[in-house]
Amino acid sequence: MTAGVLTIGFDADDTLWHNETIFERVHGRFQTLLARYHDAATVGRTLFATEMRNLELYGYGVKAFTLSSIETAIALSGGHISAAEIQQVLELGREMLEHPVELLDGVTETVAQLAPRHRVLLITKGDLRDQERKLEKSGLAVHFSAVEIVSEKNETTYAAILRRHAIDPRQFLMVGNSLKSDIQPVLALGGLGAHIPYHLTWAAEHTEQVPDAPGRFFTLSSVRELPPLVEACGG
Amino acid sequence: MTAGVLTIGFDADDTLWHNETIFERVHGRFQTLLARYHDAATVGRTLFATEMRNLELYGYGVKAFTLSSIETAIALSGGHISAAEIQQVLELGREMLEHPVELLDGVTETVAQLAPRHRVLLITKGDLRDQERKLEKSGLAVHFSAVEIVSEKNETTYAAILRRHAIDPRQFLMVGNSLKSDIQPVLALGGLGAHIPYHLTWAAEHTEQVPDAPGRFFTLSSVRELPPLVEACGG
Repeated sequence: MTAGVLTIGFDADDTLWHNETIFERVHGRFQTLLARYHDAATVGRTLFATEMRNLELYGYGVKAFTLSSIETAIALSGGHISAAEIQQVLELGREMLEHPVELLDGVTETVAQLAPRHRVLLITKGDLRDQERKLEKSGLAVHFSAVEIVSEKNETTYAAILRRHAIDPRQFLMVGNSLKSDIQPVLALGGLGAHIPYHLTWAAEHTEQVPDAPGRFFTLSSVRELPPLVEACGG
Repeated sequence: MTAGVLTIGFDADDTLWHNETIFERVHGRFQTLLARYHDAATVGRTLFATEMRNLELYGYGVKAFTLSSIETAIALSGGHISAAEIQQVLELGREMLEHPVELLDGVTETVAQLAPRHRVLLITKGDLRDQERKLEKSGLAVHFSAVEIVSEKNETTYAAILRRHAIDPRQFLMVGNSLKSDIQPVLALGGLGAHIPYHLTWAAEHTEQVPDAPGRFFTLSSVRELPPLVEACGG
């Protein structure tokens, strides 16, 4: 356990608000659009492979997803997809960007409860403008002392964030749904991690590694369990 | 003039490295692609209108440009554009992202000369991953004490950056090619601006307003004129 008051970092997508459910619905509609060319499993597999191939170039977020979807549609249709159908893929992307922000249960109360006593950061990857827009729509912005939108969440980026804010890693608790992006890099730096699994996990966030960090790694079933955990960690 | 040592903020695209020239070449190829549907002027005008309509949703950068180009191609072809041609538009976007970084004349020496005596920041808008990649390719990253990639460059975002880094606006000099994004907001906050025009300006950056800030606004013909200006401003 650490001395002093914890700084708490929150992931955003699927930790504060629903995200993967929106992608899942769009995947379904994309598979329907391509159903006359290939079965849903092939479409899903090819789209994911395209996204992974483009990840280094495009990064995360809805615009990257839309571009990879168009590329996939052209490839899987053997070049027969129509302009009107590609327009539909553009519309799917637009709908995702315009989608209302749906907060997870307990988020508003919990963040509001922790913010007065702790420095609370938002740390998310993805598209700059889209994440800013979602934060604004969420009504939570007022609680965060800083917002860090990064292109990748790994040890290097977390170390830079902690350094920039003069945070001792031993007094930093990261809260998120992804073991790979939210928990493992922070544990590796000597920090604490609270994993709150979401019912869906994007394949790119899957990991086989189970964290081994007694006293520093916690699994919660709801964000509502966070305040007692923070208290148990010495505030 | 200000007391103390100036902090210097650099814009990136068309200030440190060529950018608009790359867009210009791609515009030309896009116009050729659509030449059998419309003349170049119509294509250019429609693409720009589409980009402006999508700006709030998509933000800046190559991925946004690519999505708007696809939308424009579908609209201007009356839905007759082929999948193979849309694939070509995707390829144009990819080429832009993979394009080598071509530094402007004098940039490396000037930044290297200023960095040891001044806090030097990079402040750019656009796509997170693309701007990070260009900075890395540029070889200039080592000189910047901080890199701020923002979704819009206005008074609000500059004020937040100056606050975050505890910079007195009166001791902050912003260097860039866009009066609208680099100079005017900083002058409005009480800072200094060095405008270095680039030979091409994206229509969205055009402004009619000429800054009126004697002793705080300077026009340079090359980044090489920056060190003597900084010295004249009291270091």
